[in-house]
Amino acid sequence: MVKTYKLSTDRNGLIDITPQVEAALAESGLSDGILLVSIPHSTASLTVMSPWDPLGLEDVHDEINRIVPTRIDFKHQYDTPQDASAHVKAAIVGHSRSFFFEGGKLGLGHSQKIYFWEFDGPRSRQFQIQFVGQ
Amino acid sequence: MVKTYKLSTDRNGLIDITPQVEAALAESGLSDGILLVSIPHSTASLTVMSPWDPLGLEDVHDEINRIVPTRIDFKHQYDTPQDASAHVKAAIVGHSRSFFFEGGKLGLGHSQKIYFWEFDGPRSRQFQIQFVGQ
Amino acid sequence: MVKTYKLSTDRNGLIDITPQVEAALAESGLSDGILLVSIPHSTASLTVMSPWDPLGLEDVHDEINRIVPTRIDFKHQYDTPQDASAHVKAAIVGHSRSFFFEGGKLGLGHSQKIYFWEFDGPRSRQFQIQFVGQ
Repeated sequence: MVKTYKLSTDRNGLIDITPQVEAALAESGLSDGILLVSIPHSTASLTVMSPWDPLGLEDVHDEINRIVPTRIDFKHQYDTPQDASAHVKAAIVGHSRSFFFEGGKLGLGHSQKIYFWEFDGPRSRQFQIQFVGQ
Repeated sequence: MVKTYKLSTDRNGLIDITPQVEAALAESGLSDGILLVSIPHSTASLTVMSPWDPLGLEDVHDEINRIVPTRIDFKHQYDTPQDASAHVKAAIVGHSRSFFFEGGKLGLGHSQKIYFWEFDGPRSRQFQIQFVGQ
Repeated sequence: MVKTYKLSTDRNGLIDITPQVEAALAESGLSDGILLVSIPHSTASLTVMSPWDPLGLEDVHDEINRIVPTRIDFKHQYDTPQDASAHVKAAIVGHSRSFFFEGGKLGLGHSQKIYFWEFDGPRSRQFQIQFVGQ
């Protein structure tokens, strides 16, 4: 019962996919369990972050770029320096995040949204949602 | 069957919540499956770390502060610099961790405990545990 | 129904364990659900990365070593500096990763493999796989 969603990332950074995850949960008809949001890519990640200050979203992306800067001295040379740097970011941050749901409601706090984190865009991307529970 | 626990973080750093997770598993009556520990906050995380050297726990927290230093040049200005930095740390480390259990026993190694990782305390916090299995 | 696999890490860095995870899934007889790959160690992690350029795998490991350098000024002094540094890396990257499966097939993209990430080897290690689903 995996649900697949497509998105086009128009930039690098954080893109809110919470509405799709909530819609998928509603469509599943399940009320209590765990769901996994996963991406089939190795140069992007998923994360959870507060939506309240859009500048905070920029900080998060600025910081990962400061921590793993795009530069020309990566050993990986098959693609762009941005691609080489993106692989590192994705390996650290991770390709999936898990969430609980209860009473049909997704288990997020009031300052949490789920974000697709693009490190090597713009690109056509997708994410998948799997459910276990009842 | 989500169980919610409250804690008051008296400081920033790693706070052992393994006893609560083990108690929740025992109360669930389940023997075999996966459990998710999740927090509804965007300035804290969950992680797994060795408890044996308390100074190692300090190292882990010192290092995340060195990697994402608290400073005044974040774009996010609605709250303190510590808050801005905490959002970055939380987005990288993550808001949840998953564990297996088998025979009613939590799947941790002998040098693993589960920690609530406070980045912007002291604060009233909580964490939630969800189970799937039998 | 936890399956345990042993491995000997002959070096620090990324070691592909995808074949074992796929074999475990096939043996489970399950077709649709979520599986958790978990390690019982606090100085190693699990991650997902592209296998296509072996030099990219080296970059990922080089970068985590640059971000959390092995050095003698950690407070943790019970073991080697490499061990102290490894605890920090493991706390950030994480001890487990979750994956979906559908129709008996593991939910990985064509540029994704699952890696055991050794930070303090060579060592005798293990990883465990748990399944929920049907």
